[in-house]
Amino acid sequence: MTARNLFLLPGDGIGPEAMAEVRKIIAHMNAEMAGGFTTDEGLVGGSAYDAHGAAISDADMVKAMAADAVLFGAVGGPKWDDVPYEVRPEAGLLRLRKDMELFANLRPAICYPALANASSLKAELVEGLDILIVRELTGGVYFGEPKEIIDLGNGQKRGIDTQVYDTYEIERIAGVAFELARTRQNRVCSMEKRNVMKSGVLWNQVVTATHKAKYSDVQLEHMLADAGGMQLVRAPKQFDVIVTDNLFGDMLSDVAAMLTGSLGMLPSASLGAPDAKTGKRKALYEPVHGSAPDIAGKGIANPIAMIASFAMCLRYSFNLVKEADNLEKAIANVLDKGIRTGDIMAEGARKVGTAEMGDAILAEF
Amino acid sequence: MTARNLFLLPGDGIGPEAMAEVRKIIAHMNAEMAGGFTTDEGLVGGSAYDAHGAAISDADMVKAMAADAVLFGAVGGPKWDDVPYEVRPEAGLLRLRKDMELFANLRPAICYPALANASSLKAELVEGLDILIVRELTGGVYFGEPKEIIDLGNGQKRGIDTQVYDTYEIERIAGVAFELARTRQNRVCSMEKRNVMKSGVLWNQVVTATHKAKYSDVQLEHMLADAGGMQLVRAPKQFDVIVTDNLFGDMLSDVAAMLTGSLGMLPSASLGAPDAKTGKRKALYEPVHGSAPDIAGKGIANPIAMIASFAMCLRYSFNLVKEADNLEKAIANVLDKGIRTGDIMAEGARKVGTAEMGDAILAEF
Ligand SMILES: CC(C)[C@H](C(=O)O)[C@@H](O)C(=O)O
Ligand SMILES: CC(C)[C@H](C(=O)O)[C@@H](O)C(=O)O
Repeated sequence: MTARNLFLLPGDGIGPEAMAEVRKIIAHMNAEMAGGFTTDEGLVGGSAYDAHGAAISDADMVKAMAADAVLFGAVGGPKWDDVPYEVRPEAGLLRLRKDMELFANLRPAICYPALANASSLKAELVEGLDILIVRELTGGVYFGEPKEIIDLGNGQKRGIDTQVYDTYEIERIAGVAFELARTRQNRVCSMEKRNVMKSGVLWNQVVTATHKAKYSDVQLEHMLADAGGMQLVRAPKQFDVIVTDNLFGDMLSDVAAMLTGSLGMLPSASLGAPDAKTGKRKALYEPVHGSAPDIAGKGIANPIAMIASFAMCLRYSFNLVKEADNLEKAIANVLDKGIRTGDIMAEGARKVGTAEMGDAILAEF
Repeated sequence: MTARNLFLLPGDGIGPEAMAEVRKIIAHMNAEMAGGFTTDEGLVGGSAYDAHGAAISDADMVKAMAADAVLFGAVGGPKWDDVPYEVRPEAGLLRLRKDMELFANLRPAICYPALANASSLKAELVEGLDILIVRELTGGVYFGEPKEIIDLGNGQKRGIDTQVYDTYEIERIAGVAFELARTRQNRVCSMEKRNVMKSGVLWNQVVTATHKAKYSDVQLEHMLADAGGMQLVRAPKQFDVIVTDNLFGDMLSDVAAMLTGSLGMLPSASLGAPDAKTGKRKALYEPVHGSAPDIAGKGIANPIAMIASFAMCLRYSFNLVKEADNLEKAIANVLDKGIRTGDIMAEGARKVGTAEMGDAILAEF
């Protein structure tokens, strides 16, 4: 049995605290399970910048590329607000996504039943909510060139970013969305702004053609991205799988995450294409929440998103479906028991810190 | 007394029905008021395409440019889904915005007290909500070049859009936001994605510099646009004025509009720079909602957004502050009385059609 190779990048802020709870679960699994996991660890974001002046070192990039899966915490914080653009904390994450070619970002927006009341939406609108946002992650305005600030003289500057999408990029992300839809409610809603963007026109055409050619059994709908944002707020349960570009995906998945009332609990998976020989995909797993510098180091952060990201890792990178199911069930059980970190505290619940929450989940696992 | 010159562009779908109710109010004001309004009318969107193959004719553009204010209904519908990109219904609206240089789009997101329960958010989160989104409207990815689809051969195409912002564009929209904030709660939140976009870096710098140079009495906050979308859903009342670019403004203002539960009621104003000599601004007023082709022609559409847009017109183009206040109060009174169109129907309310709603508002005016 080949060892399962994990590369841990806890990052900044609450990242390391949350990652510590995942380490407990890995240790537990290693004690129980044949083969188990080997782990290595690196620096990313502000902590990498402090150590060696880049948001991720080349050496750590090599390790990330070689790992079966990368577990990523969070990056950024006020300490690094004024570092140069090229080495800002986010640059580490963007380099990982780009160099590992992690084009498919899976962001489930799930409403944990125990938390339906924590949503700012009326409980009946979010109870049972289970959307999967499939966001393109290596293209669009995030990486298109030119991307620069030009000095025009006369005190005028010009900021430029370029949204670029090629047919193959849209085809492959649409494929991921349709495949995943088949394992769910078999419905995909594609979102773009074809009424103002040429990349939106192409997006719409390619998704339509991909659907027709290979996935006509899946129900496909198109929606303008602004209307999509509205519909997410109005009636989120109408959606099953949403497929959209990098920037719209960033905005829409954050709105969707907030709807659930479970922001501190939402995981994500970023996947590459299956290797032609081995079928393996490069993969990175990270919580949807950020580094939350305001509560970092206090031991009060919610580790659930990080732990749920590890559950996605078990499922997608190692096909450990039963273990993934069990870990997700352990999270739901702990919530049902009324054990809560501060961010999801409710009347009558027992308030715990990061480590206690991790322990409680491990006990149910 | 100079005549007040209005150019009406009802457009498609429910646009003409909603505009008819504004015409009643204009006729009433003309009968009561010295000077009054002169009106002319043109075609825009699909109806313009049907009449002369363009989304707005050059002749109507000349009239729009010459008018004191343009009242715009809505454009688009399935009938024109397959017309060429250059003459699609939206092209008429985009040409009006660009040629009239309407760089400042004001989108109030107000929760009418009588409708707090219609929001998908919990009533206490939206009761009394009063946000003003100031969206840049003539720049960014909507108009930047290159904007094209290139055939790369091999069955591959490339869709390209370009986000461009110059210092002066950011300065002037920031100025509008700060000025308006002074008439409200004196707080501005600027939203961009400086962590991935160079135009966002420039946006952030220019807003900061403009604030420091001329508006340091106003409270300024910066937020990443994705976090902004989240915060709008989590706790919308934290905002007073939000200033953001064309595309983020499109997304965020739609989310904000939906939060209020009052989507069919929200107006918008699009303003140009004051003329150096006369101080007059070119201006266009339009509802935030679209053309709603599914209910067009049935006499059931909600005309309130269109009427409220005319109230903004009275205020911003003609400085008829008392009349604007009265018209807005008339809308609120009618809602308080439980008179509702289908889209905002509530238990115990009286359901009316478009014309009856217009009449009810006129009776209160
Ligand atoms: C940190 C930032 C670069 C990132 C993004 O914009 O993609 C984040 O917002 C996300 O959604 O993962
Ligand atoms: C109709 C469309 C071109 C327009 C836009 O994207 O600006 C609309 O969504 C709006 O917000 O006014």
